[in-house]
Amino acid sequence: MNDSVTLMQPTFQDIQAAHERIKPYIHRTPLLTSRLFNEWTGGELYFKCENFQKVAAFKARGAFNTVFSLTDEEAARGIVTHSSGNHAAAVALAAKTRGVPAFIVMPENSPQIKKNAVMAYGGEIIYCGNTQADRENAAAEVMQRTHATFVHPYNDLRVIAGQATCAKEILEDAPNLDFILAPVSGGGLLAGTALSATSINPHIQVIGCEPEEADDAFRSHRDGTMYPAVTPPTTICDGLRTSLGTLTFPIIRERVSAIHTVSEESIVKAMRKVWEVLKIIIEPSCAVPVAVLLEKKLDVHGKRVGVILTGGNVDLDRLPWQ
Amino acid sequence: MNDSVTLMQPTFQDIQAAHERIKPYIHRTPLLTSRLFNEWTGGELYFKCENFQKVAAFKARGAFNTVFSLTDEEAARGIVTHSSGNHAAAVALAAKTRGVPAFIVMPENSPQIKKNAVMAYGGEIIYCGNTQADRENAAAEVMQRTHATFVHPYNDLRVIAGQATCAKEILEDAPNLDFILAPVSGGGLLAGTALSATSINPHIQVIGCEPEEADDAFRSHRDGTMYPAVTPPTTICDGLRTSLGTLTFPIIRERVSAIHTVSEESIVKAMRKVWEVLKIIIEPSCAVPVAVLLEKKLDVHGKRVGVILTGGNVDLDRLPWQ
Repeated sequence: MNDSVTLMQPTFQDIQAAHERIKPYIHRTPLLTSRLFNEWTGGELYFKCENFQKVAAFKARGAFNTVFSLTDEEAARGIVTHSSGNHAAAVALAAKTRGVPAFIVMPENSPQIKKNAVMAYGGEIIYCGNTQADRENAAAEVMQRTHATFVHPYNDLRVIAGQATCAKEILEDAPNLDFILAPVSGGGLLAGTALSATSINPHIQVIGCEPEEADDAFRSHRDGTMYPAVTPPTTICDGLRTSLGTLTFPIIRERVSAIHTVSEESIVKAMRKVWEVLKIIIEPSCAVPVAVLLEKKLDVHGKRVGVILTGGNVDLDRLPWQ
Repeated sequence: MNDSVTLMQPTFQDIQAAHERIKPYIHRTPLLTSRLFNEWTGGELYFKCENFQKVAAFKARGAFNTVFSLTDEEAARGIVTHSSGNHAAAVALAAKTRGVPAFIVMPENSPQIKKNAVMAYGGEIIYCGNTQADRENAAAEVMQRTHATFVHPYNDLRVIAGQATCAKEILEDAPNLDFILAPVSGGGLLAGTALSATSINPHIQVIGCEPEEADDAFRSHRDGTMYPAVTPPTTICDGLRTSLGTLTFPIIRERVSAIHTVSEESIVKAMRKVWEVLKIIIEPSCAVPVAVLLEKKLDVHGKRVGVILTGGNVDLDRLPWQ
């Protein structure tokens, strides 16, 4: 038997298996480069466009890996999650693709645009109250009734292995990177990225990026102890408001070189620069690593840098610079 | 000797030579696909992302081909054009890349954002009055003083051959298309597209797309006579307000199957759908072929369709749906 730490994180073989499993269903998203961004940062930047991913977010990777890991019998009973964001849409699409039901627990007052997204992907919405306890109770009730499988947004080895496939693709397309930057919230993407990247190249530095106003992962990484998320959440990065998980934190502590934080203003500026220069639509959470680079929180002069652009779901009627 | 009609249009060899000439300087832009757009139209759509091109517009192709066609002696005297749009930026960048001066004639009241773009690419702005005559006089004055070469935005065989490389790339990446759609204004892109596409596949149908409120190309194609642009221009498509040229019209008459027109409302709707679904930024002029498809002005059911997305230069502070 291996020791318990090893057992509690996906191996690189798990990540390779996840990649083979989800390849038929996800997009191999492109890497974009930009002369101007290279000029501004002094580095050689490769932007991984997960905003072009299915459901317009990397979350498709973890959701598809989990749903397609289940036995036919397990899958047939359905999938349940509580989330109102990209993970909910990803679970709904993965379940629909496998031909099984998805039960998505959402607070009744969720924005209509998010309800529509889940319904568009064929998910069944179960409404609940506004607290975390309301959500968990509603999900537990669904599981009891249907025996559906719960898919956590990040604290699940299958989800972490799925998110890890993103960095694997980056390093296949742009080998020998010095850095990979990803935003961090619950840590599924950052943990997966760190596992993939350091397995492929032990010298690469994986950098987490976080809003100053939601800096619990920064403090947790610095102090070696897991802090809860900042409440109430004030950052505009609606995808970055949760805390690290018991599975993601140990991986991040072990394999992530640093976490850098940036101001709300710099995040909005970075988001707009990406829209203007790369001509692609990214959501605020996505812009955090870009802000870290533009604000020179990390010196990448002469370095090769991968940047994960995590998603593109934005309300076009309410842009943050307006 | 060939007859004069043949002499007045680029051959496919000219287009191939243009492509080799500009390849080191331009991006080979990707083709994007979308399950949702396929569902909505019934076709298999391939979106050619010239919004990711240098200067964020296909205009880079024609400008680079022309500037790099010149002898060293000609080039050294500089390049001049009168334009305030994407062509101006493209000429400035091509000249800068060749290391020669670019003189860009612009009305004094041009938006600051357009002046900045030209200056960012190293162009020297020559201000003039607001009429077409003012522009032409100012350009003539520059030519007399500097002996710079004038590069017309579309009525030039080198420009047409350059724009034609876009459709060549599309058909290399997605062979056997049934249709290619492109917007039409002066006709450089549409004529080039028609030359490339029908040379590669005589059965392909090339479709021009135009705002109803600027339908001079539609009427010119229908009646076989060249009408001037609608004045004053009212369409929001600021790239589609000029008339066909003496070189582009004969090619379009001969090789374009049809021109379809769409309303302003449908153009804005189509632009927004592209932002929402493809997660890329396109300018209003770009959305015209997309509107033709979404409005079912052209039946593409079961067909393979190339759609040229021409550019991505938009003022993010003033979006047309706001």
